[in-house]
Amino acid sequence: MRKTLYLGSLPIGGGHPIAVQSMTNTKTRDCEATVGQIRRLEEAGCEAVRVAVPAQEDAEALEGIVEQSGIPVIADIHFDHRLALQSLRNGVQGLRLNPGNMKDRKGILDVVEEAAQRDVPIRVGVNAGSVDRSRFPVITPEAMVESALFHIRILEETGFDKIKVSLKSHDVFLTLESYRLFSTLRDYPLHAGITEAGFGISGLMRSAAGLSLLLQEGLADTLRISLTGDPVQEVEAAFALLDALNLRRRGVTLISCPTCGRTEIDLEKMAYLVKEELSTVKEPLTVAVMGCAVNGPGEAADADFGIAGGKKEGLIFVKGKVIGKYPEAELVKRLKDVIMEELRRKR
Amino acid sequence: MRKTLYLGSLPIGGGHPIAVQSMTNTKTRDCEATVGQIRRLEEAGCEAVRVAVPAQEDAEALEGIVEQSGIPVIADIHFDHRLALQSLRNGVQGLRLNPGNMKDRKGILDVVEEAAQRDVPIRVGVNAGSVDRSRFPVITPEAMVESALFHIRILEETGFDKIKVSLKSHDVFLTLESYRLFSTLRDYPLHAGITEAGFGISGLMRSAAGLSLLLQEGLADTLRISLTGDPVQEVEAAFALLDALNLRRRGVTLISCPTCGRTEIDLEKMAYLVKEELSTVKEPLTVAVMGCAVNGPGEAADADFGIAGGKKEGLIFVKGKVIGKYPEAELVKRLKDVIMEELRRKR
Repeated sequence: MRKTLYLGSLPIGGGHPIAVQSMTNTKTRDCEATVGQIRRLEEAGCEAVRVAVPAQEDAEALEGIVEQSGIPVIADIHFDHRLALQSLRNGVQGLRLNPGNMKDRKGILDVVEEAAQRDVPIRVGVNAGSVDRSRFPVITPEAMVESALFHIRILEETGFDKIKVSLKSHDVFLTLESYRLFSTLRDYPLHAGITEAGFGISGLMRSAAGLSLLLQEGLADTLRISLTGDPVQEVEAAFALLDALNLRRRGVTLISCPTCGRTEIDLEKMAYLVKEELSTVKEPLTVAVMGCAVNGPGEAADADFGIAGGKKEGLIFVKGKVIGKYPEAELVKRLKDVIMEELRRKR
Repeated sequence: MRKTLYLGSLPIGGGHPIAVQSMTNTKTRDCEATVGQIRRLEEAGCEAVRVAVPAQEDAEALEGIVEQSGIPVIADIHFDHRLALQSLRNGVQGLRLNPGNMKDRKGILDVVEEAAQRDVPIRVGVNAGSVDRSRFPVITPEAMVESALFHIRILEETGFDKIKVSLKSHDVFLTLESYRLFSTLRDYPLHAGITEAGFGISGLMRSAAGLSLLLQEGLADTLRISLTGDPVQEVEAAFALLDALNLRRRGVTLISCPTCGRTEIDLEKMAYLVKEELSTVKEPLTVAVMGCAVNGPGEAADADFGIAGGKKEGLIFVKGKVIGKYPEAELVKRLKDVIMEELRRKR
């Protein structure tokens, strides 16, 4: 069992639910835009958010950002320990920095002291692309891990142990082997991800491939899926992956039957409508959209709610039991009403 | 090692490359639309295509479709053995049908005889949603496998062994356990996939999660990623997944550095442009887009080609060696020229 640490009140590690992170792509110094994006990330279920702090103005903006954010804020810092110090003083709940890369090797001690006093964890984040090629001409899992340990030892020598670690690369198996090896050497919580995953479908598939293998082996305590574009998609993708691997559920999981010769409705369209209508639901729910009123409710008996479309009319069922028959055009709206009423009752 | 069988000249199983399949979503009876979609699938790298054959008109259209398709065509048939017979006579290279579901239990023998004479394989495709709930009230891996064996035995009793098998469900671990169990009992090639995966990002993530685990354990000889919408995306997603797992490569794999304080170009935009410009390349190539002229070529020495952007100008490099310096606005075009010339030389 790996250690638990806390980003604000969010536990990471120690068998707690795998926390979903994302990163803003606004200019951090633009407090309003950054807070706006964080709000949208929160709405999507994001549990901690990283912001880039490349300069003084960005560190200054953190005061307002942390105050307005509903989730822990992590400052991402390279090279300059003063940015880390100011970020801490402005209340960030996490830091991501590699102490060995800080220009002022004494300044890092001030950062660690401040972080320790404030109970703020530090993530050491190694990327294959930034491993020191003069020491490691070929990037192996051993090189990734040694690179992480180089930074970690600087923290450990001060007695600081609120450490999270990531060992990301573009290569799924280099990443997997690096996390495997590291997890045999230290029990710090693991932040999982694939870097430089690429664009669109290929980015999603590469991230999912790498993270599936890490998650299956229990080598992730928190994760970020890095995608180009709107970070809200990163959160949607993360929950979809955790749902697929039966690790966490959020909102509606839709199941629909493979259509067959008996199907007389446009099942895909109806499934899409159901997903759209229920997109604001945060509670985990399984909703079935079945093409056949004869077998549908029985086949989807495991679903919390479902509809079975037929010709001109269809059924609504709850846990496999039919509760009503409605004209086809009303089905989705009726289903939504039934679900919303049930959720209100439970809240 | 599982058996090898052939869809036309395409080998499936026996350690051959994992074949990428898709399925048309046109009306099969609309020969022109179906052939048009198949052409687009071929262009994307699809190696075998399934078409639904729900009725006589669809079976009739297969003659023209098979003639014009550049890849093997697989007829997907339920209930009516006459559709299978006609599909075979019209030249399809594969069938997907579950013999135990055929209404005419004697007719299936004619189908098997015709398939055997024509050397056409049959895929037995079990879906969790269509397992007989009266026999198996709870769908377990054992129920999935027993359901497959029920259909398979009907074929085996005639001496037919050109069999492919799929055991798909919505649940990643039910699917994984079913393939694991089946692979201990028979050595028929495995067609892998996740059904009812859902829409958009969640469909991609669920498919990728399930298939990553199957592929990592060698439990797939051919695969289809089922997505709602344009099936060309299924092929793109399949190759992206196979690439991520180092199993197959097609076209450009893009790597780009994590941007840092030194980056002075819009790296994401440049990476996107490179991907777009090289979208027609079929040969496997790794192309790096790096933000830094100082470290870029060295860090991306493993890439076949790369660019390293700087301020106003940038470098083009081949296997880590710089071959030219160009104004930033020309970089992507110059890179494309270099790559295309190299590919022409090799073709």
